[in-house]
Amino acid sequence: MDYIKVPHLIEEKSFEIITEELGNKTFPEEIGRIIKRVIHTTADFQYADILVISPDAVESAKEALRRGVNIVTDTQMAKAGINKTKLGELGGDVHCYISDVDVAKRAKEKGITRAMVSMEKAIENEKNQIFVIGNAPTALFELKRFIEEKKIQPALVVGVPVGFVGAAESKEEFKHLNVPYIITRGRKGGSTVGAAIINALLYML
Amino acid sequence: MDYIKVPHLIEEKSFEIITEELGNKTFPEEIGRIIKRVIHTTADFQYADILVISPDAVESAKEALRRGVNIVTDTQMAKAGINKTKLGELGGDVHCYISDVDVAKRAKEKGITRAMVSMEKAIENEKNQIFVIGNAPTALFELKRFIEEKKIQPALVVGVPVGFVGAAESKEEFKHLNVPYIITRGRKGGSTVGAAIINALLYML
Repeated sequence: MDYIKVPHLIEEKSFEIITEELGNKTFPEEIGRIIKRVIHTTADFQYADILVISPDAVESAKEALRRGVNIVTDTQMAKAGINKTKLGELGGDVHCYISDVDVAKRAKEKGITRAMVSMEKAIENEKNQIFVIGNAPTALFELKRFIEEKKIQPALVVGVPVGFVGAAESKEEFKHLNVPYIITRGRKGGSTVGAAIINALLYML
Repeated sequence: MDYIKVPHLIEEKSFEIITEELGNKTFPEEIGRIIKRVIHTTADFQYADILVISPDAVESAKEALRRGVNIVTDTQMAKAGINKTKLGELGGDVHCYISDVDVAKRAKEKGITRAMVSMEKAIENEKNQIFVIGNAPTALFELKRFIEEKKIQPALVVGVPVGFVGAAESKEEFKHLNVPYIITRGRKGGSTVGAAIINALLYML
């Protein structure tokens, strides 16, 4: 069986195919890199139409990543997918509190999601992080509340929860907030999508 | 902002919506559970058409999981997404060797992917594991070779690498092998899809 085994050739060829199949759809350089990396991760060209990137998102994220910003995720999967070597070289780290014992305990007591409590915990010490929400609309609703209450001023919110209950609504809300955001319209998204967006930003630096 | 915050209600409601939107498409009970959990994870109904499940896959996997089979993944993301609490209660564990220093070293020496070397390492001691390939076609090609050379006899291969170079071909190959498999046709798949399939199987027990 003959097949390409050299890692960087596989990735190069993949991006060539994606660019070719996008055809007439072209984007500003950095926006295109984000969109193509998400398509690379999902093999789903619909992301070219449903990703929404606020005008200040790329510059704000790059500035923050350069100064070693920390990233908070709502899932261990998103954390696992982010290139922590590259992030670490810049001085940043990824935190995910969803599996913490105190988070589970408090969520059970209050009858709310662990994702919501994990966001409460995340903002205790830092106001200006990057947030990546790939799974839980409830986490995104909480972030919205924190922003409105001026408890946080994120460098970027990647709001791409996937799902059927609350996901689309939670993302639309972000368009009305004065924060840099990258979201998806509708139901699609996920932890892999969130991680791909962060990695695309990291690879710009 | 009023939204559902109770975890099990969110999941129940999601599966209701998925079942409703699948409409006339119905499946045998356990097959349906796998398909719906993948749609729940991706919000992509195309998976109802592209998932291919060998007739022996569900029973073989359940039997293996019940006796505490170990699971090998090609990515840390797939490992992160599998319900390790539930798996651990049954006596099983998840292994992923992709980030191991010796794997990286050997891959570099040979000019092949770390995913290929991680599969070599995975089969050193165990023949009858469950494999979950969500990212690397090269890992799936390696597994095919091991099976043909009778080095392994997996309880199940979840072969759902996503991508543009080799992914579709690597999955098609599995239809001709005499092993229990769950694959996707075409380019789509991914670590979240692989983890969702395993979790659907775990929740049957």
